[in-house]
Amino acid sequence: MPDHRPAPPIIDFRSDNTGRAAPEMIAALAAANEGTAGGYGGDEWTALLQRRFSELFETAVRVFPVATGTAANALALAALSPSWGAVYCGEQAHVNTAEANATGFFSGGAKLTPVAGPNGKMAAAMTLTQAGDLGAVYTLDEVRELTAIAKTHNIKIHMDGARFANALARLGCSPAELTWRAGIDVLSFGATKNGGLLCDAIVVFAPDIVPALAVQLRRAGQVWSKMRFAAAQLLAYVEDGLWLRNARQANDIAARIAAGLGNLPGATPLAPVEANELFLRLPGAVMDGLEQDGIRFFRRPGDIARFVCRFDATPAEADALLASLRRHLATSR
Amino acid sequence: MPDHRPAPPIIDFRSDNTGRAAPEMIAALAAANEGTAGGYGGDEWTALLQRRFSELFETAVRVFPVATGTAANALALAALSPSWGAVYCGEQAHVNTAEANATGFFSGGAKLTPVAGPNGKMAAAMTLTQAGDLGAVYTLDEVRELTAIAKTHNIKIHMDGARFANALARLGCSPAELTWRAGIDVLSFGATKNGGLLCDAIVVFAPDIVPALAVQLRRAGQVWSKMRFAAAQLLAYVEDGLWLRNARQANDIAARIAAGLGNLPGATPLAPVEANELFLRLPGAVMDGLEQDGIRFFRRPGDIARFVCRFDATPAEADALLASLRRHLATSR
Amino acid sequence: MPDHRPAPPIIDFRSDNTGRAAPEMIAALAAANEGTAGGYGGDEWTALLQRRFSELFETAVRVFPVATGTAANALALAALSPSWGAVYCGEQAHVNTAEANATGFFSGGAKLTPVAGPNGKMAAAMTLTQAGDLGAVYTLDEVRELTAIAKTHNIKIHMDGARFANALARLGCSPAELTWRAGIDVLSFGATKNGGLLCDAIVVFAPDIVPALAVQLRRAGQVWSKMRFAAAQLLAYVEDGLWLRNARQANDIAARIAAGLGNLPGATPLAPVEANELFLRLPGAVMDGLEQDGIRFFRRPGDIARFVCRFDATPAEADALLASLRRHLATSR
Amino acid sequence: MPDHRPAPPIIDFRSDNTGRAAPEMIAALAAANEGTAGGYGGDEWTALLQRRFSELFETAVRVFPVATGTAANALALAALSPSWGAVYCGEQAHVNTAEANATGFFSGGAKLTPVAGPNGKMAAAMTLTQAGDLGAVYTLDEVRELTAIAKTHNIKIHMDGARFANALARLGCSPAELTWRAGIDVLSFGATKNGGLLCDAIVVFAPDIVPALAVQLRRAGQVWSKMRFAAAQLLAYVEDGLWLRNARQANDIAARIAAGLGNLPGATPLAPVEANELFLRLPGAVMDGLEQDGIRFFRRPGDIARFVCRFDATPAEADALLASLRRHLATSR
Repeated sequence: MPDHRPAPPIIDFRSDNTGRAAPEMIAALAAANEGTAGGYGGDEWTALLQRRFSELFETAVRVFPVATGTAANALALAALSPSWGAVYCGEQAHVNTAEANATGFFSGGAKLTPVAGPNGKMAAAMTLTQAGDLGAVYTLDEVRELTAIAKTHNIKIHMDGARFANALARLGCSPAELTWRAGIDVLSFGATKNGGLLCDAIVVFAPDIVPALAVQLRRAGQVWSKMRFAAAQLLAYVEDGLWLRNARQANDIAARIAAGLGNLPGATPLAPVEANELFLRLPGAVMDGLEQDGIRFFRRPGDIARFVCRFDATPAEADALLASLRRHLATSR
Repeated sequence: MPDHRPAPPIIDFRSDNTGRAAPEMIAALAAANEGTAGGYGGDEWTALLQRRFSELFETAVRVFPVATGTAANALALAALSPSWGAVYCGEQAHVNTAEANATGFFSGGAKLTPVAGPNGKMAAAMTLTQAGDLGAVYTLDEVRELTAIAKTHNIKIHMDGARFANALARLGCSPAELTWRAGIDVLSFGATKNGGLLCDAIVVFAPDIVPALAVQLRRAGQVWSKMRFAAAQLLAYVEDGLWLRNARQANDIAARIAAGLGNLPGATPLAPVEANELFLRLPGAVMDGLEQDGIRFFRRPGDIARFVCRFDATPAEADALLASLRRHLATSR
Repeated sequence: MPDHRPAPPIIDFRSDNTGRAAPEMIAALAAANEGTAGGYGGDEWTALLQRRFSELFETAVRVFPVATGTAANALALAALSPSWGAVYCGEQAHVNTAEANATGFFSGGAKLTPVAGPNGKMAAAMTLTQAGDLGAVYTLDEVRELTAIAKTHNIKIHMDGARFANALARLGCSPAELTWRAGIDVLSFGATKNGGLLCDAIVVFAPDIVPALAVQLRRAGQVWSKMRFAAAQLLAYVEDGLWLRNARQANDIAARIAAGLGNLPGATPLAPVEANELFLRLPGAVMDGLEQDGIRFFRRPGDIARFVCRFDATPAEADALLASLRRHLATSR
Repeated sequence: MPDHRPAPPIIDFRSDNTGRAAPEMIAALAAANEGTAGGYGGDEWTALLQRRFSELFETAVRVFPVATGTAANALALAALSPSWGAVYCGEQAHVNTAEANATGFFSGGAKLTPVAGPNGKMAAAMTLTQAGDLGAVYTLDEVRELTAIAKTHNIKIHMDGARFANALARLGCSPAELTWRAGIDVLSFGATKNGGLLCDAIVVFAPDIVPALAVQLRRAGQVWSKMRFAAAQLLAYVEDGLWLRNARQANDIAARIAAGLGNLPGATPLAPVEANELFLRLPGAVMDGLEQDGIRFFRRPGDIARFVCRFDATPAEADALLASLRRHLATSR
């Protein structure tokens, strides 16, 4: 496999998806590999997944494992909006900036409308990213307020929970409180970024959209024939609180970095660091310096650097980032 | 987990997707779970997969891992046909009968046209299932003849290789001979049915469709962020001939059953048994009897029973099926 | 303009759409060209059209003028079927053979399924061409039987009435009897073929599909800003029975030809001549002979000749066709 | 027909589409109503239209008559952009605000992206409204600059010419100069607003998009079977400069109003009045007053009043508007 130059060691804050999978989830795949099982979800692991998630969310839900978060978001929004409808979202929302208009495609033409856009469509859906697109977390009250406004206009609400566990760990509330009890109709339930391998899920609280969504998943090529291996991942993910433990670890590393920045001039996060992401506006020379020190992260337009803490990031990696930042910021002034 | 009634033991010929995964492929997931890696395919396993498959097919190919065979078929066909085009297929083709019109959906409206249908469309694609929909295998000459006709009409050709390894094992030719050298433009490369877990792949021989297809995969929610776990599955699948070994085992069991049927009256397969599937037209009472004996299989319209041999099906299971068949056929006359 | 060779005079049985428009309908355009009027259907002619058609069909209907029959069929069927649904039709149906899969396109992927096809879809629509695709007319009892079967499967029914007036003229029943009273949910109301110029209409009997359909028409570019000129055409079309008078003339010419064929050997129509079309299976030499005599008609695969009688076709044209046919059939034996 | 209250007389500045059709165009329909003609565009009027427009634009163009401007815009843009592409447009563009996302629909998912939006898509198109969305006209130099930038990014350019004649009349240049010579690939050629009845057209300068577009038009239900009546409208429209005469009349009325406003306080147009539209920001009480005086116009969000001058608007109507405006503006201060 590829050769690496010797020094410095790489420290990786690029994304939670550059990380490993939780060993517990790989073990679950081996454990599920016994005997034969019905195809396309007609197996006992998938059945158990329905029960386990219904307990977890304290209501009868329907869970659909899907390959990716893009599939989860786009298919969920397509189930909430007619093909000629509008989907209200934030300017920064992943569905608006990074999914090749999958929402427009799966819905047959619905128009993604950043919130400042024109109103007055006859039917619509809203999507809300939790944790948020710049690393902050909506409080329970904020979620409730937004869904209340939407509901007075007969708009259905989707939560993009790519980092749902991180938000939950931060808020300390129950999954039910953060979703259907707060007015959410359908949830993209992320697992990949927080220690998963190859699946996320759609969790449906509004039972009327289930029959159509089930067919659309089949048409989208998102129904694995050996579904048990997807279900087993998700069962392991929520077993014994693994997901919250992983999310707490990732959040803690981000908080350690935010605390370490303290009042370091020139290093104020763009939004409160409440989950596992930090966004800093940094001079290009500082970003170059970080990269030379072996720090990996993503550069965004407008001199913005994004640092994401994986569930298996370490305090030592956080401290190395802080030291490198301090050094280069001191030089750059 | 669910309780089973004591006797008889279940013998499962329902589908290759009711089977286990090859332990080698699960081991590959654990082995890939080291260090960090670029997301969405920007990792070394995915890079290696490109090289490995280019060697395997003896030409520069592009491989796209996808979640399911439906995704592989529909996205490959959408890349070959404009939205107003026709896609010629067999009446029995999986794309025509079991995929919720995913091909029409992903292509934006192309019309699946079973071969007897109207001609004269301005642009089109053809799809060919290998091994075939009733268990027979197209010979190399047959494939070449079909693609030659298609090419004279400027029609591109897709091979649905959900059971590509089974066909290859039967024909004893190379992957290159059965695909691009025989005129195939793009291949749905099945792995799940033959010992895989959670991914199949699209293998592209016509480089001009790659850029558009790459965007369409993203839009379809078929680009995993932790792509290395998909790539690792496919690498393990073709490592040391695992895929052909598995396919040969499955084919051998099917051949054992076909041989055992011999000239048993009332048990003539609908098509030559050349891969791992048998189709028999059986009286309802015989099918009931088989089920009471613990044999699992699928009933199709028209009194047709489908028996599929998994890669880990055993000679003892084959013999149990033959014994049960003989007994119930004798009674039914 | 183009030059014509001197003899023989052209006699045109190609299609009803090669014909002129009824002068009454052109006069209606001039009459509507007074004063200003609200755009996009907010004018008094369009309002009057709603009332006039509700009287005509003896129930509250909603009428949407559209540019073409393809638009009428595809948009009506899209309103009846979800994007993953099936649309059952006849093998010969215009929607299946001649509309570039507009139904699949406007519905976002619904699959046209000729009646012999697979069943068991979760949602579906049926379409029925009246007068039929080979020139016969469904009796009231036949329509009722078909819609009754469909309704027991929760299938909605569309009538492709490209030649609705010809069927009505033949049956002598009321528009209401042939549509909603017989179980039809939505009608493609043809006018162009029977003396119209530039518009047909969708007539909706099932009010629940109206709001979505209204948006889809806008999106389809089928809502004229100067709608009054479309409404005026349709108002003139049904004024004083113009449409039935025109249809009767066309039917009468077809009946005259059918009677004239009598027991002429080799000239048996493929289906009873009940509207304004005749289909004959003729030797190629006979077709060549007809063309040399200046007869225009359409050749279809399988040595089939289609003769369509326009509303302004004349008895003399019918007799010329008969004479030419007799002569060439006599020679060809 | 509806009753009107006696006084005051209605003066209508709502839209150019509330106006009459040019009598010359209705006369052309009657003139085209002779003899039989091939369907779906296979007639001599449609052939003549190709030649006439190629002369008019001084290059070989392909003209497709369509029912509406929405169809022209959406189908033209769909021909320029792949289904996963971006379409750059202005915030106010009709395609972005008033067409039910027809562009997204016909393209199979392309994303309308107002110019401030994210870049970096792999393929794209641009649309430019001429005359502009607030009544100003792009100069030739401005058009050339925009298309030059677009072409350096491999972006194709569409002109929404709903008021193309008004822009042309203003600029005094030739149709060729304002389109393909300035870098335009395809033009939505408006006729309805400027004295037409029931059709606009797509004029194609980039011949490579013609074959696909021709099929898409059929699928869109935009190919009339009696095409001659659409072609005859467009032929009459450009005959003897009728279109420019009509446009000049409409522009002159708008200019008369703009001149009359002079330095009237509180009545400054939002953009230079260069075609046939005026946009004024007016107090609600003034708008109410205008309406009580029988003036018809459209109210837009943000206290904006739109006044559109039809080709048959009169100087007396302009003066009545000015008098009413002066009176109510004086009172409102």
